[in-house]
Amino acid sequence: MTPTKRDILSAADLGRGELENLLELAQRTKGKRQSQVLAGRTLGLLFFDRSLRTRVSFEVAATQLGAHCLNIFADREIYDLEQVERAVMDGHAEEHVKDAARTLSRYVDLLGVRKLSRTGSWEEDRAEQLLRSYAKYADVPVVNLESTMEHPCQAIADVMTMQEHLTSLKGRRFTLAWSMNPEPKNMGPCHSVLQLAARLGMEVTLAHPLGFELDKDIVEQASRDAADSGGQVRVVNELEAGVQDAEVVYTRSWGSTRYWSDPEREIMVKRSLQSWIFDEATMARTANALFMHPLPVRRGVGATDAVLDGPRSVIYDQAENRVYAQKALLTHLLG
Amino acid sequence: MTPTKRDILSAADLGRGELENLLELAQRTKGKRQSQVLAGRTLGLLFFDRSLRTRVSFEVAATQLGAHCLNIFADREIYDLEQVERAVMDGHAEEHVKDAARTLSRYVDLLGVRKLSRTGSWEEDRAEQLLRSYAKYADVPVVNLESTMEHPCQAIADVMTMQEHLTSLKGRRFTLAWSMNPEPKNMGPCHSVLQLAARLGMEVTLAHPLGFELDKDIVEQASRDAADSGGQVRVVNELEAGVQDAEVVYTRSWGSTRYWSDPEREIMVKRSLQSWIFDEATMARTANALFMHPLPVRRGVGATDAVLDGPRSVIYDQAENRVYAQKALLTHLLG
Amino acid sequence: MTPTKRDILSAADLGRGELENLLELAQRTKGKRQSQVLAGRTLGLLFFDRSLRTRVSFEVAATQLGAHCLNIFADREIYDLEQVERAVMDGHAEEHVKDAARTLSRYVDLLGVRKLSRTGSWEEDRAEQLLRSYAKYADVPVVNLESTMEHPCQAIADVMTMQEHLTSLKGRRFTLAWSMNPEPKNMGPCHSVLQLAARLGMEVTLAHPLGFELDKDIVEQASRDAADSGGQVRVVNELEAGVQDAEVVYTRSWGSTRYWSDPEREIMVKRSLQSWIFDEATMARTANALFMHPLPVRRGVGATDAVLDGPRSVIYDQAENRVYAQKALLTHLLG
Repeated sequence: MTPTKRDILSAADLGRGELENLLELAQRTKGKRQSQVLAGRTLGLLFFDRSLRTRVSFEVAATQLGAHCLNIFADREIYDLEQVERAVMDGHAEEHVKDAARTLSRYVDLLGVRKLSRTGSWEEDRAEQLLRSYAKYADVPVVNLESTMEHPCQAIADVMTMQEHLTSLKGRRFTLAWSMNPEPKNMGPCHSVLQLAARLGMEVTLAHPLGFELDKDIVEQASRDAADSGGQVRVVNELEAGVQDAEVVYTRSWGSTRYWSDPEREIMVKRSLQSWIFDEATMARTANALFMHPLPVRRGVGATDAVLDGPRSVIYDQAENRVYAQKALLTHLLG
Repeated sequence: MTPTKRDILSAADLGRGELENLLELAQRTKGKRQSQVLAGRTLGLLFFDRSLRTRVSFEVAATQLGAHCLNIFADREIYDLEQVERAVMDGHAEEHVKDAARTLSRYVDLLGVRKLSRTGSWEEDRAEQLLRSYAKYADVPVVNLESTMEHPCQAIADVMTMQEHLTSLKGRRFTLAWSMNPEPKNMGPCHSVLQLAARLGMEVTLAHPLGFELDKDIVEQASRDAADSGGQVRVVNELEAGVQDAEVVYTRSWGSTRYWSDPEREIMVKRSLQSWIFDEATMARTANALFMHPLPVRRGVGATDAVLDGPRSVIYDQAENRVYAQKALLTHLLG
Repeated sequence: MTPTKRDILSAADLGRGELENLLELAQRTKGKRQSQVLAGRTLGLLFFDRSLRTRVSFEVAATQLGAHCLNIFADREIYDLEQVERAVMDGHAEEHVKDAARTLSRYVDLLGVRKLSRTGSWEEDRAEQLLRSYAKYADVPVVNLESTMEHPCQAIADVMTMQEHLTSLKGRRFTLAWSMNPEPKNMGPCHSVLQLAARLGMEVTLAHPLGFELDKDIVEQASRDAADSGGQVRVVNELEAGVQDAEVVYTRSWGSTRYWSDPEREIMVKRSLQSWIFDEATMARTANALFMHPLPVRRGVGATDAVLDGPRSVIYDQAENRVYAQKALLTHLLG
């Protein structure tokens, strides 16, 4: 009865052929009433951080497929979890993640985990111990609902949205650009969309201020993937140069791995980066690019109302496509 | 595919014919197993304040109609929302209500919003900016799940309950009376039932202490509506005179618009108003009136156990009728 | 329409024949897709404390039977409740439990209540006023989802798990042993499994440190029940003697009724009780006993990894059997 165990923790967990199949399935079923292929199945989604799009789009996707979606706001509804293997649990944690994961595996057909807020150093947080412990101990597939490093479900919806407008993505000029946000952020959506854009052979420009480099391993892997698919990844440290002639621009803020454990310092450093905003002047440099953002967005800070609400903005399509992307993914994993 | 956009923010949003149709539908389907006319539909209900009856009765109503009800306890589950148009979002709020409303409109078929606690001055709170922003930006119908000013779903159930006992409401003597509560309250249920009682041609007596006037615009509108329907609205400032010969009494506490921003002062003023309680002596002045209260009630403070648990009390019928009233409303809006 | 009112507050509420029928039904339907015998029914589950297994297993059980499960995290989602009969409610509580119970009875077909944290003296907490008030005032069956004193749903799953391994439980040597936990705990699962083991005629050994006696009334009742069924209950105050030759060991920490209102003192007393841990040496004294624990467990404190993850541990089977036990119970109460 137990489905084959297959975790989706990173966008890189999706092979190129598998990704293309998912995208094709998502597009084909968009807006159609489907048969309830997951009737009798249950998803258990664990939220350790706030969520609007992920939580609602998963519940809608599951319900449309006939599955039951069980949401757990973990920090206040279940027990504090121990994550260290062989720990003597005489402290605050009442339950080991091992026991939570194994227990939940007896109840549900798939687990989702959202944990993205900073809790330690960059090296600690990039290891994503909580997410990876759930994946290690659960007997059922574990899906990343956004972590420090990745947000694969968002990225599938993002490339689906690009395909709706550009048909084939191969060789198209895609700029992934940092933008301002007063708050220290995670890397999730940006790492994941970078990997999928590279894997699909786009000409990727990564634009960010010095000190806001993405994870070195992720960028190197994306460069190799892009090369394999006939694309490339280049990095620039100016917004203007980064967006020049782009066909798609994708922006969001992300954190500085240098100042990860010192968010006050990161905030101070960012005071000089307020020009990293998508306004009409920035967009004018592009080749009439599609404008993308995974939301939530700080209006007037990361992008202006004119751009967000403008004719080339597809921000709500990205959000809507979460439903179709996730229905395809759930069908793929459990159907 | 998107249903026609129709918001129910105020009891006044229901025309008289429409209201009568809703009441007829609610009464006709009460206690009957219905076909799942809303199968495949999703409601997204946003709670910014605590709720027992509204939350449970909506979830039951939706489920019985085949719809999926998605409850969001907004203050802790989603992001802090900016409400000001064209704000530069460099403060605490991570998402603009515009983006939350538009995103949710891609996922659900109807939005509900409950926001009733005091957050500003009377003029600010009576504007109900959060509720009205959702209505403005959402592409799907928005239903008020109780606000500072209104609680239309409660009021539909209330008049439905009166009709069960009195058949026609036209010309019947209805007293809406303030009663004691140590806590500063909103106006919601009282404004809404006042408007519907007036619209249905009842002889309305509004009884409250000086300083606890209901909103002037609402009372004036109700007076005009009552006149149009052959009824009237009169105001008295004594409980005894207010309930004299009433056929229905409806009580709840509400706030003072004078002391809205100074709840400590309001509490002090209320120390001399402890006689505003529904006890057997108060009820003896009525014409064996039905006793109504929208709950929750402070037993021994706003009404005595003898009255609340007495033979003329219909407080649980009001609560139960929420299910049927809301099934009728949902069918009307989405069916 | 209202189902006959039948509350399950204590394991003792299940007669022996009824218990055997439930176990037989649970075992027979385990892992089978059942018809949706509770289609159209709604469960309302009130959680005043954290929950993993109870909440998820009930939601899964209900959903598999076609019922809708409505979870309420009561402390933050509904109003503060008054529990005292005839109280003048001029304090903090906004609603009387009487009104919450009666209102919910108009909406749902069964209520569950979980309230297990310490809030008063031992005498106060053992009276379980909140749970018993819901049972008193609700018109629908009330099921205990774990209280200070009892956890009947866990205990049904526990004896079901024993039966899977031992077939008949009559005359089998069952040791219920206290084990270490830094945190003051309730008595729930231990009281309930003690009663069911006794009722099914097991040879029960109750092992705990001096000062950690279980409730006198419960132990006396269990002794009488055991005697009626051909078994017995004996008490020892050493772990080694307690587990000697046991065929099943069941452990969990529980509180001290002596130090109930002084948890700091209880924690201090427990410093000398760290040898009350289930390790391989403890297990070697048993007759190759099954190892049971209701979870959550403090690994390395109440039991070692070697025991918890060892070949005789059935801790996840106990958790999984919650689903089948509760489906049987729900079918029994509402079907």
